[in-house]
Amino acid sequence: MIHFECDYLEGAHPAILERLVETNLEKTAGYGLDPYCDAAKEKIRQACGCPQAEVHFLVGGTQTNATVIGAMLKPYEGVIAAETGHISVHEAGAIEAGGHKVLTLPHHNGKLDPKEVAAYLNAFYADSTYTHMVFPGMVYISHPTEYGTLYTADELTELHALCTLYQIPLFLDGARLAYGLAADGTDVTLETIAKTCDVFYFGGTKVGALFGEAVVFPQPGKVSQFFTYIKQQGALLAKGRLLGIQFDTLFTNNLYQEIGSHTIAMAKKLKDGLTAKGYSFFLNSPTNQQFIIVDNEKLAELEKKVVYSVWEKYDETHTVIRFATSWATTEEDVDTLLSYL
Amino acid sequence: MIHFECDYLEGAHPAILERLVETNLEKTAGYGLDPYCDAAKEKIRQACGCPQAEVHFLVGGTQTNATVIGAMLKPYEGVIAAETGHISVHEAGAIEAGGHKVLTLPHHNGKLDPKEVAAYLNAFYADSTYTHMVFPGMVYISHPTEYGTLYTADELTELHALCTLYQIPLFLDGARLAYGLAADGTDVTLETIAKTCDVFYFGGTKVGALFGEAVVFPQPGKVSQFFTYIKQQGALLAKGRLLGIQFDTLFTNNLYQEIGSHTIAMAKKLKDGLTAKGYSFFLNSPTNQQFIIVDNEKLAELEKKVVYSVWEKYDETHTVIRFATSWATTEEDVDTLLSYL
Amino acid sequence: MIHFECDYLEGAHPAILERLVETNLEKTAGYGLDPYCDAAKEKIRQACGCPQAEVHFLVGGTQTNATVIGAMLKPYEGVIAAETGHISVHEAGAIEAGGHKVLTLPHHNGKLDPKEVAAYLNAFYADSTYTHMVFPGMVYISHPTEYGTLYTADELTELHALCTLYQIPLFLDGARLAYGLAADGTDVTLETIAKTCDVFYFGGTKVGALFGEAVVFPQPGKVSQFFTYIKQQGALLAKGRLLGIQFDTLFTNNLYQEIGSHTIAMAKKLKDGLTAKGYSFFLNSPTNQQFIIVDNEKLAELEKKVVYSVWEKYDETHTVIRFATSWATTEEDVDTLLSYL
Amino acid sequence: MIHFECDYLEGAHPAILERLVETNLEKTAGYGLDPYCDAAKEKIRQACGCPQAEVHFLVGGTQTNATVIGAMLKPYEGVIAAETGHISVHEAGAIEAGGHKVLTLPHHNGKLDPKEVAAYLNAFYADSTYTHMVFPGMVYISHPTEYGTLYTADELTELHALCTLYQIPLFLDGARLAYGLAADGTDVTLETIAKTCDVFYFGGTKVGALFGEAVVFPQPGKVSQFFTYIKQQGALLAKGRLLGIQFDTLFTNNLYQEIGSHTIAMAKKLKDGLTAKGYSFFLNSPTNQQFIIVDNEKLAELEKKVVYSVWEKYDETHTVIRFATSWATTEEDVDTLLSYL
Repeated sequence: MIHFECDYLEGAHPAILERLVETNLEKTAGYGLDPYCDAAKEKIRQACGCPQAEVHFLVGGTQTNATVIGAMLKPYEGVIAAETGHISVHEAGAIEAGGHKVLTLPHHNGKLDPKEVAAYLNAFYADSTYTHMVFPGMVYISHPTEYGTLYTADELTELHALCTLYQIPLFLDGARLAYGLAADGTDVTLETIAKTCDVFYFGGTKVGALFGEAVVFPQPGKVSQFFTYIKQQGALLAKGRLLGIQFDTLFTNNLYQEIGSHTIAMAKKLKDGLTAKGYSFFLNSPTNQQFIIVDNEKLAELEKKVVYSVWEKYDETHTVIRFATSWATTEEDVDTLLSYL
Repeated sequence: MIHFECDYLEGAHPAILERLVETNLEKTAGYGLDPYCDAAKEKIRQACGCPQAEVHFLVGGTQTNATVIGAMLKPYEGVIAAETGHISVHEAGAIEAGGHKVLTLPHHNGKLDPKEVAAYLNAFYADSTYTHMVFPGMVYISHPTEYGTLYTADELTELHALCTLYQIPLFLDGARLAYGLAADGTDVTLETIAKTCDVFYFGGTKVGALFGEAVVFPQPGKVSQFFTYIKQQGALLAKGRLLGIQFDTLFTNNLYQEIGSHTIAMAKKLKDGLTAKGYSFFLNSPTNQQFIIVDNEKLAELEKKVVYSVWEKYDETHTVIRFATSWATTEEDVDTLLSYL
Repeated sequence: MIHFECDYLEGAHPAILERLVETNLEKTAGYGLDPYCDAAKEKIRQACGCPQAEVHFLVGGTQTNATVIGAMLKPYEGVIAAETGHISVHEAGAIEAGGHKVLTLPHHNGKLDPKEVAAYLNAFYADSTYTHMVFPGMVYISHPTEYGTLYTADELTELHALCTLYQIPLFLDGARLAYGLAADGTDVTLETIAKTCDVFYFGGTKVGALFGEAVVFPQPGKVSQFFTYIKQQGALLAKGRLLGIQFDTLFTNNLYQEIGSHTIAMAKKLKDGLTAKGYSFFLNSPTNQQFIIVDNEKLAELEKKVVYSVWEKYDETHTVIRFATSWATTEEDVDTLLSYL
Repeated sequence: MIHFECDYLEGAHPAILERLVETNLEKTAGYGLDPYCDAAKEKIRQACGCPQAEVHFLVGGTQTNATVIGAMLKPYEGVIAAETGHISVHEAGAIEAGGHKVLTLPHHNGKLDPKEVAAYLNAFYADSTYTHMVFPGMVYISHPTEYGTLYTADELTELHALCTLYQIPLFLDGARLAYGLAADGTDVTLETIAKTCDVFYFGGTKVGALFGEAVVFPQPGKVSQFFTYIKQQGALLAKGRLLGIQFDTLFTNNLYQEIGSHTIAMAKKLKDGLTAKGYSFFLNSPTNQQFIIVDNEKLAELEKKVVYSVWEKYDETHTVIRFATSWATTEEDVDTLLSYL
């Protein structure tokens, strides 16, 4: 049985685990007040080219989304997101549990269209009853999206201009950011993100860490007492250094980039192989998630040998499935998968 | 200037105000523990044919929706509603502020389609990731809807069967219930509602009261300590008898029905006049809200003489506007309006 | 049977009801966007000597407390209150339901001691673990307190200085403010309140209105989109003019002050009578609530003729009870009550 | 410098880390649906003697408290806790952020007195205004308490009887449960806890795990859809097996008990040494936290060599400090500490 169902199947990248083992018996202060967290934050600031950036470590993605959104919105505000956004669908209502509506717009291969966001914002304030409605208080995007697609630098710039105009923050969910940065043909760099977003995060969980997400506010002072809010949300890890050590490792010797590149290389090999074999893609993803349309009979056979994700029904006889690569995917794994297809 | 913009333009029906004046100097216990509330509850139980019904009085509609929904949903549940439902759009996020997602489905002239609700519920539990999503914990409908349309008895029965199957309550927002009951051609009676809904309310605010909504649980025991929850939501009126007196008056000598009938008669007269003059209706409403499509030039002229509600843009040169009748609308008012059109 | 159990036993002061009757058939815009609300706000601004003040009308006290506190606190903040404060005890957890802790301090006849508030704030920031605790984000006082007692101008000034130092608002719950302003010997005027508090409200419910509380922010701009937040909290009255008319009446020809004076005169007559008869007071209240210690045997007899509030057990054989006067209390009522004692 | 400030200074017990390394490259399903979680749950059920128990793994203590309490309380309920309870003081208002009041009672060396709990519950329902107050909906205790003290089996039985009488759950926070079970003289076993508590948890973070808390409902079915609620609270770890592996290790070959015993042995050695040197104890703790009263001058000297926790000011010249032992504390560490004192 080979596994291509997701990018968080293993424990951690060996380099990370090694550091955890090496440092295991050291005694440090809790709650992130340790030298590893300090070092990791500094390396992240350098990677982003933001010496002033405020960096915070949290444990998981849903938690991070809920904590950032809850901290930045006023009580009468909601967050604009694509209808396919992770916060709209697969977080069990965490944003609403925090008191805020997710204001959904149609997705285009997982992405928001900046023009539609502009139209929404414009229409909102043009509606004579807008004071009876939820104010749009933030724009949330994921990059890569839940469909593996990417925004262009122009699109981010356009969203940024819009957010600036309406004085609301732009929040980028980077649960799989490494794969977006390493994708072929993208013109979005870390610098682009740091310049256009008010807050974003580097996902660790899906990029080789045991767990952990690093939230970056390129300009400090956007939220007050975020540490306490993290604590209130149950998102403050007692042994905070576990996050510091992991992110310090990821941002040392370009490990984060390397994981991105390797994963993308494996995805590309897979994509090329699928193309060669004549498979139809559900959409064109430049990152580590590949969505193909498969005949249900073929699928019945395939599921004996490969674990994949069922994405959605395509038609009566076909299904959309997802394969994902990761730091742990080998060339051999891809060859084996292709041989089954 | 004549007014047709909504059905809550005046104070109260004179019979109500008279009772408030008559009883003004009486001294009664607060918080609804007075004889007027008791009497009103009993009359409501009789009107519904539910001698066991639990009745509670609240002040306004948004408050009532948020209180009922918050009391009945579990923390991991949301409420299914039409995308045009009042709770989805015009309550400033009150439901989400209480921690619950509004799960929207397409509307059909303001109504949910029971088949689509069934499909949604079925698809939810068929999705392998449903435990990561918001559980559908209630179905919310308004009757009349925000577009003045009505469910049929069959549709209510179908929704009821569905809710029973999935063990979730059916909640009917009756902010304008009197107009629904008095409409021509409806087969929905109070008895239908009491048999198919787990909870519903008689709106007072839009039906001649100063304010007030009467929540009815046809079967008691559906929520525990609802009184305290009302208090917590800031929805408990200190001088609760003001609600008791108003609803006692509305349910004495069929005043509630009479207000319904008069208002519908005025709406019908208006509708007939509009039809005769060749106006296009945006949709066919059998109740007190009439939506017509008007040329923008005509509108510019009209707004000097009539106050109406702008509903939405129809096309580049036309607009959908709403006229509403109420207990206070006279034949003369309608004639005057028609003379302007 | 005579009634002295509270100050909201009747409907409304006749002058208020008369205005409601007079204006009943007028047609006005909803949600407070009517001329009566405008006029009432202007009169309130003048009464406070704050031409810039922002004024909002809500329906009830618990609702007002929850709405003001929820709008002004950040998510990681709580509100300091006396352990006997209305928000601490008798609002069914409305503040916590909004996500905020009530940080209680000991009461002194219902009042906070500014020195203890200072000590609390100082100790909070001196505690090395304060970032793991709820930040004190507001000071809430009631004036008169739940025990009928009053702050002095010096105490308000001291609390104001403290709040300014810690950059948190001072919020005064004036559910019974009229009685505080009319009390003998108080040096607190409306001007004092407007200068020392960031937000306060004039209670209507307990001062002769059917319902209604008028929130005043002496300096505008302290909260953004408060209207929408009121709507979200279910606290926006559709027929908002009912609040405007009531407060306009209360602030015309000094009715609010007159109600205060009459009520205090009746309380004073009662207090003098009680003193003459040798009753022990639980505490010395200068306002319309009088608390006396009564032998339980006497009480058993009394309860056949008078309705009073049981406050608390005093000892095995005595109970603390409360009598309250109001605009509707007559000299004769007081004489009758005294004759029973 | 030696460290005695807390029991979560290191990474994890080596046996745990070893298992994480061994299993690192295995590919398993996420969110706890893996064989390690299954195995760990089964071992925990056996350890508790509850074959029917429902077991869930969460990441941290504050998160676990907020999630369990939020899932079990109705919206109008609060949770009774000692004023020194972790949820009352050091969770940044997490319980209130979830909408619930913490109803505090005085502590007795960190413990609730069952008699006082009984009196509180009795007084609540005897108060004629109780429907305006927060209902006591749960009793929360920590065992060991924040002061290292322990309940007796009789006290747990008494609390259990009380909770049964009032039909509310008893929740035991076992962040340091291993130390309570291993303490000298305790008559509380796991069986006692499983029989008297409706829900409790085995803390991992402070007992040798990297992180993790194992929630046990001895009787299943007490909460519905707890998995989804965990997800909503941001408390569901994507790589859930990390929790399974850790708890499987802790409950294999009695590691959990061994860590308890070793830690207690070290605490006892320290306590004996402190006694021998004539130190005054702030209270008599039978577990791994020892609180002593130290002269401030002595302290100034001590802090150059030892890291400890400052607990509170004792008097003008003395301070209460805390030393904590853990699985990583050696005899040598204790000897060194004693040599400094």
